[in-house]
Amino acid sequence: MRHLKLIVAYDGTNYHGWQVQRESDGPTVQGTLEAALYRLTGERVRVTAASRTDAGVHAWGQVVNFATESRIPVERFPLAMNSVLPADVVVRRAEEVGEDFHARFQARRKIYRYVIYNSRVPSPFWRRYAWFIPVHLDQELMREGAGRLVGRHDYRSFCASGSPVRTFVRTVDMLNVERRDNLIYITIAADGFLYNMVRIIAGTLVEVGQGKRSPASLAGTLAARRRETAGETAPPQGLCLLRVDYGPLNQGEQENLPGGPALP
Amino acid sequence: MRHLKLIVAYDGTNYHGWQVQRESDGPTVQGTLEAALYRLTGERVRVTAASRTDAGVHAWGQVVNFATESRIPVERFPLAMNSVLPADVVVRRAEEVGEDFHARFQARRKIYRYVIYNSRVPSPFWRRYAWFIPVHLDQELMREGAGRLVGRHDYRSFCASGSPVRTFVRTVDMLNVERRDNLIYITIAADGFLYNMVRIIAGTLVEVGQGKRSPASLAGTLAARRRETAGETAPPQGLCLLRVDYGPLNQGEQENLPGGPALP
Repeated sequence: MRHLKLIVAYDGTNYHGWQVQRESDGPTVQGTLEAALYRLTGERVRVTAASRTDAGVHAWGQVVNFATESRIPVERFPLAMNSVLPADVVVRRAEEVGEDFHARFQARRKIYRYVIYNSRVPSPFWRRYAWFIPVHLDQELMREGAGRLVGRHDYRSFCASGSPVRTFVRTVDMLNVERRDNLIYITIAADGFLYNMVRIIAGTLVEVGQGKRSPASLAGTLAARRRETAGETAPPQGLCLLRVDYGPLNQGEQENLPGGPALP
Repeated sequence: MRHLKLIVAYDGTNYHGWQVQRESDGPTVQGTLEAALYRLTGERVRVTAASRTDAGVHAWGQVVNFATESRIPVERFPLAMNSVLPADVVVRRAEEVGEDFHARFQARRKIYRYVIYNSRVPSPFWRRYAWFIPVHLDQELMREGAGRLVGRHDYRSFCASGSPVRTFVRTVDMLNVERRDNLIYITIAADGFLYNMVRIIAGTLVEVGQGKRSPASLAGTLAARRRETAGETAPPQGLCLLRVDYGPLNQGEQENLPGGPALP
């Protein structure tokens, strides 16, 4: 038995999220990967992901692990998988790992990006990948607000209510707000995320950017530990899981975050 | 009667090109705009475009004109149209023009961009907007080849055979090749384009980038004036009509070409 780790990118637009649901709910990324593995290996394997992304959420660096008897050389695995996967799910890399590797439990740090398309007129190219906000957002205010949320805090105010977790304390070590033309990128790294945390932070920072709440007020929002003190939950299509790091943080992958030039 | 000019952006993925065809061929951008105008004004208007883009081709700056009795103020026209258009077709701007304005016949210069996603592994985010080429392309060779195609030339070798045109002579005043990470942008401006000209130039430059033909050989390709001497026609989804200029060239719009950061 071999244990493999895959780095998977997907356009989440046409999926009902990562996790296999009842069949009536439509296709999931997990189900799509498992079907591709079955076609490739003849095995009914169950795959585990670092993050169970919601419907409509994208990934560039989702991490997946599973066990297989397949003898396909690991370096050929991405090409073999991509030949049986639909075009909106892509295996970027594969490597062999120890049997104790667990994509979710051993993740030390995750990086998400939330994209806002901020222009008076929407773009047909960004409708699947960004939240369209037609009123001008002040990115300096947003950046100042983001600074208030960095650190080790109880993020209960930024967690969908009713989430069954033991603790709401997380460490956000990066929360950048960057504008490039009509796009605003919110990039956030933490040792773990509560349910809807990035989308609630994005929704709250948008209210800061509109001048509806002050950057300084976010300290009070954190302290309140009540969901209703934060802003609305931003829609899913702006969210993308960029990367998951394992092992000691200072050995995090050195690859650059995806960037470069855009669609119009 | 008022005469309006619209700047229109569209994601061409789900359209059978610009021009209205037989109904059995599926939706077109022209038909979609005319249906939206009917909903908005109650008028059955016919719209004229600067470029009759093919199925799957995109536009950021398509220019459209038509006549209307509608009294909707021109500055409200984009928002009104966008409220009845599907999300993959967007009116970016509207202005009133003289009755002699014709979007196609008066176009002095058009700028197209062809995008190649050049990486060993495809990206789920670029599959609708770029041509995926897994073998490495040498952008210096491509740039050198592009330089051979700039100028006033007979481009018959770069025209789909059987096109009924009076002359194959066009003036290409810009043909840039630019790499940013995994993306290669070919940006081309000319006073007019032959049928499939940008896609055949892109297909030929890709062969140059693979070392299959030399940059210098493109002078001979031009001189041959035979379609079969050029490379294959690149697929439609990499092509985008960026901008159309009217009036004297030195009064071309000063707006920046779309750029900025990318999808992963």
